[in-house]
Amino acid sequence: MGPFPFSEDARALRPSPIRRFATILNDPSIISFAGGVPNPLTFPAAELAKAAESAARRNAAVALQYGPTAGLPALRERIAALLSRKGIAASADSILVTTGSQQALDLLARVLLDPGDAVAVESPAYVGALAAFRARRAVFVAARRSAGEIALGELSGKLEAARKAGKPVRLLYTIPNFQNPSGWTLSAEGRGRLLEVANRFDVVVVEDDPYGEVYFSQPPPASLASADREGRVVYLGSFSKTLAAGLRCGFLHGPREILARVELLKQAADLCSSSFDQSVLAAYFDENDYDAHLTSVRGFYAGQKARLSAALRQFLPPSVSVSDPAGGLFAWAKMPDGMDAETILETSLEKERVAFIPGAPFFVEEGPAERSHFRLTFAKEPPERLEEGARRLGELLHREIR
Amino acid sequence: MGPFPFSEDARALRPSPIRRFATILNDPSIISFAGGVPNPLTFPAAELAKAAESAARRNAAVALQYGPTAGLPALRERIAALLSRKGIAASADSILVTTGSQQALDLLARVLLDPGDAVAVESPAYVGALAAFRARRAVFVAARRSAGEIALGELSGKLEAARKAGKPVRLLYTIPNFQNPSGWTLSAEGRGRLLEVANRFDVVVVEDDPYGEVYFSQPPPASLASADREGRVVYLGSFSKTLAAGLRCGFLHGPREILARVELLKQAADLCSSSFDQSVLAAYFDENDYDAHLTSVRGFYAGQKARLSAALRQFLPPSVSVSDPAGGLFAWAKMPDGMDAETILETSLEKERVAFIPGAPFFVEEGPAERSHFRLTFAKEPPERLEEGARRLGELLHREIR
Repeated sequence: MGPFPFSEDARALRPSPIRRFATILNDPSIISFAGGVPNPLTFPAAELAKAAESAARRNAAVALQYGPTAGLPALRERIAALLSRKGIAASADSILVTTGSQQALDLLARVLLDPGDAVAVESPAYVGALAAFRARRAVFVAARRSAGEIALGELSGKLEAARKAGKPVRLLYTIPNFQNPSGWTLSAEGRGRLLEVANRFDVVVVEDDPYGEVYFSQPPPASLASADREGRVVYLGSFSKTLAAGLRCGFLHGPREILARVELLKQAADLCSSSFDQSVLAAYFDENDYDAHLTSVRGFYAGQKARLSAALRQFLPPSVSVSDPAGGLFAWAKMPDGMDAETILETSLEKERVAFIPGAPFFVEEGPAERSHFRLTFAKEPPERLEEGARRLGELLHREIR
Repeated sequence: MGPFPFSEDARALRPSPIRRFATILNDPSIISFAGGVPNPLTFPAAELAKAAESAARRNAAVALQYGPTAGLPALRERIAALLSRKGIAASADSILVTTGSQQALDLLARVLLDPGDAVAVESPAYVGALAAFRARRAVFVAARRSAGEIALGELSGKLEAARKAGKPVRLLYTIPNFQNPSGWTLSAEGRGRLLEVANRFDVVVVEDDPYGEVYFSQPPPASLASADREGRVVYLGSFSKTLAAGLRCGFLHGPREILARVELLKQAADLCSSSFDQSVLAAYFDENDYDAHLTSVRGFYAGQKARLSAALRQFLPPSVSVSDPAGGLFAWAKMPDGMDAETILETSLEKERVAFIPGAPFFVEEGPAERSHFRLTFAKEPPERLEEGARRLGELLHREIR
């Protein structure tokens, strides 16, 4: 049979632009700043093994059975307690567990957007969020972000123009803390002003916070959700970077009305996320000191980041700037305008055996300035390889930039 | 904020019509034929606990990490081998792992249907499939099914009419084996004829097979997928009824072109299903004799079914017919036309403390004949309560039917 009568949505799907680097990531001879995943050394494997055993042996009728679409009550309560500590007015029934926060993005896109609707996204932005919105055939309004802050004056103008054009922007997407790809953090003042803009233009704010707990010395400023007085912020969290990405336990906290629709859609989408994974997490929290674990995860990535930053300062040409993240997994490099990170990557792989991710796919605009960026993760490589990779990258960039 | 600007899809979402019985299901004083879930006694909890420990301790870098969107290679290979035994020409790369087969239904609906497209579904049908298609705002063409067989002459007429009307039916959905809700099995001849109809009208067939391994004495006839010569059958399977529903590991086998689009969409939908659950299953298969386990699951449900069937024969009025499933979890009862299962359920709950699921929501047509059906599961209750429940139901129906 075939060609198959694919839907308009399906015909619009494109492979992730950073997916084609997947093979590079698995070549151990390459020093990789390219990955986007947490370091397995930070996973509490023995504790999770024990939690899994408890869940399957002592709680099989729950852990191995279908569960409520919104998530297991024990885990929702634990998540609500974790959010409450951060000043977010959460309770178990304001929480919905998802298959990673990626599923939350997809469900929100389907519930809040019709095909062709306008979405404001920070630019650069997390490519997975762009993919979820693209799967809904959304039209992007760029909320340009640089050095942490979002260009809110410019964004207001665009929101105003969209409203006047009868195509109001329905939602605004941002990772305020230790952003992917940039490592940037939105200031407290920037958060307040962002909420004002959202209030003024009646836009739902999707605050994606996968990295917030992975700070190096100070917690980031208070979340948008904690300052939301109008019930317009949907907060997404995840245990992928703090406990284990393979458990695929993300969550969404937000206005009940939105939660109710998301739950209805999730029922049709997968009935429920893994009861086993949820039970393992619930058992983990009962049996362990999560705060102590978080402290060790923070220390691990802080050490990785310090090592890479020092090496980059030592080896990179002064014309290449690199962000100085206060948490998370990523740093963001900018070469002089006119340089193309994709071209540099090709040379880097061939001559230096060093990988990174070119920046263009993270932007919703296209241009030479965008192509001069690239993303570096300090999550994966051991310290001596972080240093050696920075040295080789420095040599290459000294040669290429004149 | 609010009312929120929900999408057209979201505004069309309705709660599952059988969801409102959820509270009944948790009341232990009620004898329940109402559930739709496997019996936890059939879950190999100790073996899965051990497999989970192996996965987390010895395979943490895979089991606790993000994995490939299509699923872990080790599990895809195992699934392909299981399908090959059943005569399906599967290989690891024709398999995509999903969060239960419910997610496969949702992804297929999004990839193959535009809003408003026509879908042929057997009627009665699994309500979860109807929900996935409804979330896509599909229009249903009823493929009426009775006593196992699908009314193919009538269906052909409808497919022809739809084609002539310029609105060709894009896919046909069926559970050939031990169907939910009816327990019916499509005959070998009926399968051959169904494929001919699908070939003639160029329709993608979605063959949903969550119960096929749960046969009582003989395996069901060969699958549609094994007889498919044109690459138009998408086969959905699951370990929810044979190992554990809580692991949420379903899968899809089908034409590469469809698989490729589903994979792209799944990448945006949740990046990947739980690596941990997939690793636990892979470890379970390595460490255990799955065939021996299947034999015990089959024996368990065969015993349950025999007990309920005998009791229903003894206690029900002869004017109530009940299907005689050769596998699965469900039997399907039909009262005389004019009886309404919802009304009977209310009385049954109040007077007899016995629950079942009224049949109307399983049909895509509405009428008095549809309302006279109800679904019984023999999965949940211990044998003596199956018998006692049948006795009480019999008393009630003797009173109500005159």
